[in-house]
Amino acid sequence: MEAPKSNFSEWYNEIIELSGLTDKRYPVKGMNIWMPYGFSLMKNVDELIRARFYSDGYEEVMFPSLISKGMFEIEFEHIRGFEKELFWIAKGGKDSLEEDLAMRPTSESAIYPMLKLWIRDHGDLPMRLFQIVQVYRYETKHTRPFIRSRDIHFIECHTSHRDYSDAEEQMKLYREEWKSFTGAICIPFLEVKRPDWDKFPGAVYTIAFDTLMPSGRTLQIGTIHQYGTNFSKNYEIEFADENGVGKNVNQTTFGMSERLIGAIVGIHGDDKGLIIPPDVAPIQIVIVPIGTQGPEMEKFIKKLENELGKMGLRYKTDRDDRYTPGFKFNQWEMKGVPLRIEIGEREVQSDSITVSRRTKKGRNKIPVSQLSDLKNELREVSKELFARAETILRSGLEGKMTGSLEATIRTAFVCEKQSCATALEGKYDKTMMGAILNYGSNGKCEVCGEDGRTSLFSNPY
Amino acid sequence: MEAPKSNFSEWYNEIIELSGLTDKRYPVKGMNIWMPYGFSLMKNVDELIRARFYSDGYEEVMFPSLISKGMFEIEFEHIRGFEKELFWIAKGGKDSLEEDLAMRPTSESAIYPMLKLWIRDHGDLPMRLFQIVQVYRYETKHTRPFIRSRDIHFIECHTSHRDYSDAEEQMKLYREEWKSFTGAICIPFLEVKRPDWDKFPGAVYTIAFDTLMPSGRTLQIGTIHQYGTNFSKNYEIEFADENGVGKNVNQTTFGMSERLIGAIVGIHGDDKGLIIPPDVAPIQIVIVPIGTQGPEMEKFIKKLENELGKMGLRYKTDRDDRYTPGFKFNQWEMKGVPLRIEIGEREVQSDSITVSRRTKKGRNKIPVSQLSDLKNELREVSKELFARAETILRSGLEGKMTGSLEATIRTAFVCEKQSCATALEGKYDKTMMGAILNYGSNGKCEVCGEDGRTSLFSNPY
Repeated sequence: MEAPKSNFSEWYNEIIELSGLTDKRYPVKGMNIWMPYGFSLMKNVDELIRARFYSDGYEEVMFPSLISKGMFEIEFEHIRGFEKELFWIAKGGKDSLEEDLAMRPTSESAIYPMLKLWIRDHGDLPMRLFQIVQVYRYETKHTRPFIRSRDIHFIECHTSHRDYSDAEEQMKLYREEWKSFTGAICIPFLEVKRPDWDKFPGAVYTIAFDTLMPSGRTLQIGTIHQYGTNFSKNYEIEFADENGVGKNVNQTTFGMSERLIGAIVGIHGDDKGLIIPPDVAPIQIVIVPIGTQGPEMEKFIKKLENELGKMGLRYKTDRDDRYTPGFKFNQWEMKGVPLRIEIGEREVQSDSITVSRRTKKGRNKIPVSQLSDLKNELREVSKELFARAETILRSGLEGKMTGSLEATIRTAFVCEKQSCATALEGKYDKTMMGAILNYGSNGKCEVCGEDGRTSLFSNPY
Repeated sequence: MEAPKSNFSEWYNEIIELSGLTDKRYPVKGMNIWMPYGFSLMKNVDELIRARFYSDGYEEVMFPSLISKGMFEIEFEHIRGFEKELFWIAKGGKDSLEEDLAMRPTSESAIYPMLKLWIRDHGDLPMRLFQIVQVYRYETKHTRPFIRSRDIHFIECHTSHRDYSDAEEQMKLYREEWKSFTGAICIPFLEVKRPDWDKFPGAVYTIAFDTLMPSGRTLQIGTIHQYGTNFSKNYEIEFADENGVGKNVNQTTFGMSERLIGAIVGIHGDDKGLIIPPDVAPIQIVIVPIGTQGPEMEKFIKKLENELGKMGLRYKTDRDDRYTPGFKFNQWEMKGVPLRIEIGEREVQSDSITVSRRTKKGRNKIPVSQLSDLKNELREVSKELFARAETILRSGLEGKMTGSLEATIRTAFVCEKQSCATALEGKYDKTMMGAILNYGSNGKCEVCGEDGRTSLFSNPY
């Protein structure tokens, strides 16, 4: 690491390549390579989310990546909202295609024509689908790996319900699921109801999950949308109720992306490099042998590996003899492995291991008979990561931030009128992101004095 | 099921939708939807392959889906071979892109410019990467789900080696891996060395894995390619050897696709529907309760589910009370679930279960104390599936096929000259697919009398 984290942008660009998450040198603008370490991290996050969705009864599908021009020709604010971001395919080989095709920017216009065919009566509802795919957006803003790219790893749920109130229950479930996902990656968040003029194109309302990056800017890392019947009316998605009466379904969506990786990198890392939350770390424990590795030590390590495997832990033993232990310590700290175990002569003799946490100084000796303590150690790392990030976010909200982060975000009471929001945006030189649902309180609008709510002002990515 | 399997094409098109694998009504030509059951099957196949690749030491990456025109501008037979199949993107929103982008048809031209940067010296070799992604081909031939589509689920390995002989070792490893993959899905195959005029564009040689579909046509379900230094010279991929001398790496690739699903459907299915090999079945065992489901039966089922879960089996209990047991039997047979367990009054009283195999008639009573027998039952299903398919393939090769499959494939001794192959292609009205490596023997060419080898003649998909 050259750049300190206080120079966030440089630090971020450097660490994501140094640690082996991505390679930015791919010759297409805004598109980067998932290197093995990065792929493994993203896959662990995917699997965490997938497991919860399965246990909550969602079904996984995979739609084609392309959407025909005709499918986009529904005259609807959703379609217009994405017009500028579509990559268009007009040729196959040297032939002009019969109909131009767009790469999906999100999948409403791919999925909803099929829901029209699949949904027949109330017995088909609720229908809850998700897919984990790449989506493509022709971003004209500055691109940055994991945060704003043109080829985006995306997780999207689409649900259909018999009425608005059932769709509202779904919105509550999303919020619970989100809490469990972000708990596992130790990322605190604000639930921010986007103002009407900034909701997802076509939605009734949007709740975004915003977090605070060390640059002082907020990052939207997930969104849930209540569509009501806005989409189902345009796509003619109807079901027959118990009396055979045709009604439009009510719909919701939940979207998350590789920005989760951007948040993990940005929020937890330090001057030494990454710190990866134990629940999703490709390697949770690295074992570094010290000194000459005779047969006795090898036997000790094998036994240890065997035990860690049985405990379901992801470990790696670094036997590379080209490097010194000190060099290896730095490398694995840079890659953010939560725990390190050192094994030397003394450890073998005393049937114990020396453990260091990535999150704190010092070492800790554990007898091999108490290896189950390692699970506690990992839990402690998670707690520390979460607590640290939570403190920073709270300080920001409470105006207690010091140093470079001072006053990068702030809150104010504001009502639902755009004119009041605009007035405060000018005053604070920040964007009004919306009312915060999981922090603050109701209060009188700073501008007009009418009913308002604690709202987030920030400079978002 | 309407169409019998003897009318293969109709049967195939019908069963893939009825069983819930895919939906062909997606409004873009040649692109189909992975429905939950189909997605789950493909994912199980992916995970089987992924696990073996990990244990053999490969690293997983994910490259962007798009390749710039400049990356294709290397003048090389590989590039020319794919020219007609590329989907081209020229516009982002309403802007013309600075450089046209193609959707990857395979990933050599995406990956190899990066290998040039990643590979420095002999310590970096062998480098073995794989990715599981979608690839896109503008197919002008008749499309068919899983067999020929324009948006293809693809598994590709790319390896780099210090010399040709190390690359040849890799080719051997691929063949072992392939045997284990196809063993798990119960598909017999021929290793066919494609003739020089039909090898992969840019390869030194290609070995294809061909299998026989019930239509009588052969289906290429996997390929391995020895590239030698053909690609590394064009892409300037060099390493420094122990003496610091720069050399081009030798490369190989291994490709497989959703055609594995096409083969599973086509080869194992029967007039009742699919039969899914146990190792990859989304549901290995379906439990159908019979008669009134009182608390005693519910308790019995819960206990059974608990045991099956502990055994690591994938099961589902069909509690849907809208349908009769007979209807359910047909449904789950159609979906190809390998084993069915019936639970009625009698089973509860005698603490036993009634088991039927999808592959044979009759039922079998097993005491709950011997539930571990179910693993044997599953193994038996796998054996039966493999043996059945193997017999058909062998009969075809030996000219003993009867009925509609008679004489759809045949073998003949032929040398390596294209003129001899062409002569026999005319005579037998079939394509010469290449010399078979895992069947037959050496022998004199039927045309010229020079040294030849048992070769496959067929009408391939």
